[in-house]
Amino acid sequence: MKVLNDLLNYNNLKIYQDTDMFQFSLDSVLLAQFVKLNKNITNILDIGTGNAIIPLILSTRTKSKIIGIEIQEKVYSLAKDSVCYNHLEKQIKLFNQDIKEYTKKSESDQFDVITCNPPFFKIYENSNKNESIYKTIARHEVLLTLEDIALCSKKLLKNGGILSMVHRPERLIDIILCLKNNNLEPKRIQFVYPKFGKDANMVLIEATKNGKPGIKIMKPLYVHLENGNYIEEIIKCFKRGD
Amino acid sequence: MKVLNDLLNYNNLKIYQDTDMFQFSLDSVLLAQFVKLNKNITNILDIGTGNAIIPLILSTRTKSKIIGIEIQEKVYSLAKDSVCYNHLEKQIKLFNQDIKEYTKKSESDQFDVITCNPPFFKIYENSNKNESIYKTIARHEVLLTLEDIALCSKKLLKNGGILSMVHRPERLIDIILCLKNNNLEPKRIQFVYPKFGKDANMVLIEATKNGKPGIKIMKPLYVHLENGNYIEEIIKCFKRGD
Repeated sequence: MKVLNDLLNYNNLKIYQDTDMFQFSLDSVLLAQFVKLNKNITNILDIGTGNAIIPLILSTRTKSKIIGIEIQEKVYSLAKDSVCYNHLEKQIKLFNQDIKEYTKKSESDQFDVITCNPPFFKIYENSNKNESIYKTIARHEVLLTLEDIALCSKKLLKNGGILSMVHRPERLIDIILCLKNNNLEPKRIQFVYPKFGKDANMVLIEATKNGKPGIKIMKPLYVHLENGNYIEEIIKCFKRGD
Repeated sequence: MKVLNDLLNYNNLKIYQDTDMFQFSLDSVLLAQFVKLNKNITNILDIGTGNAIIPLILSTRTKSKIIGIEIQEKVYSLAKDSVCYNHLEKQIKLFNQDIKEYTKKSESDQFDVITCNPPFFKIYENSNKNESIYKTIARHEVLLTLEDIALCSKKLLKNGGILSMVHRPERLIDIILCLKNNNLEPKRIQFVYPKFGKDANMVLIEATKNGKPGIKIMKPLYVHLENGNYIEEIIKCFKRGD
């Protein structure tokens, strides 16, 4: 079912979602906040943009052009509706394409920043046979693997350009090896904890193309208070009006 | 100057230190707490044991035999005095040797756990020409590198045995690559933060020889309160009576 949600804290933007598909969640919002932006950034690419939640939020933080690539036609069409609804067609361009095809046909060294909230699970991991094909593609490495993301970023990022990603901490070692193998040097990591005293359940990671070694582990981000409510910092960046 | 310090929270053990040498600090204490122990563990090795702070604390947590290797003769002799003073000669054996030599002459697959608080800095990094040779060797990778530790652990650990290490977060990527290259699979990481809102300044990391991939990022550990005092949890494991 297609619904229109508010993004209250983001210039009152609105976003179309489909309850049968993968709906945006905290990880995308946190990633869109984590990305380091400055006024020299003119080209951003969002890989596997889904309903374009990351481009939409980024549009409230930067004047940079933003390209979003989404392989699933129905999801892409939802994203397009949101971009139109918010009159952001000039800033956000969407393509219904496989990022691997897009990369093959694109010039190298053109983006300052690449963002990605990729499928978290290996193909047969955490599989749920009842979930829709839309959700499977968004959650499992069926059409997009870590290696794909790193290879595309290696080609498409300018020298010194940044890949910003959100993922599961269990995959941290894979992620680091994969980035290093593709000349993407991890520079900043922030772990997200569901509440005080628990293990991390999300990782935000930023790598620089051909960057120098040396990484910062930023302050932890907590999501919930003991009573289950969101922590103030999270409410601020997540308030959707629902 | 040789002094005798109390380890109040550790069965009232005492430890000899020399103010001209590298004195044990929070990192060793946190590592000795971080190590996962169980009653099947019968052989522990501490690489670069210094004044034997890690074996001393471990002796209060396990009945396992503990071997400490220290390359610097004067430091080794201090460690020996502490072990004697506490009547722990049966449990803790010390050798004044280079771990690389020790490893060459030792049988493989003999230890359940290896601990190491290694030199943190690359040779020319953070160098201070006024510091003593004892401190330089303890702080810089002059005689012991990450690669040495991983190579020795690969040989000396039993299959499924654990390497537990404390290090600087800036070196995290080096550490992970080095462990992976030597069949040591990182399984648990805990970051230590000087206070709320700051970047991590220490990392505790545990890797299993021939372990399966998949890592846990444990809850953050904070050291100081806003007012500069130690946090209760840290006081408990650090109280030395001075």
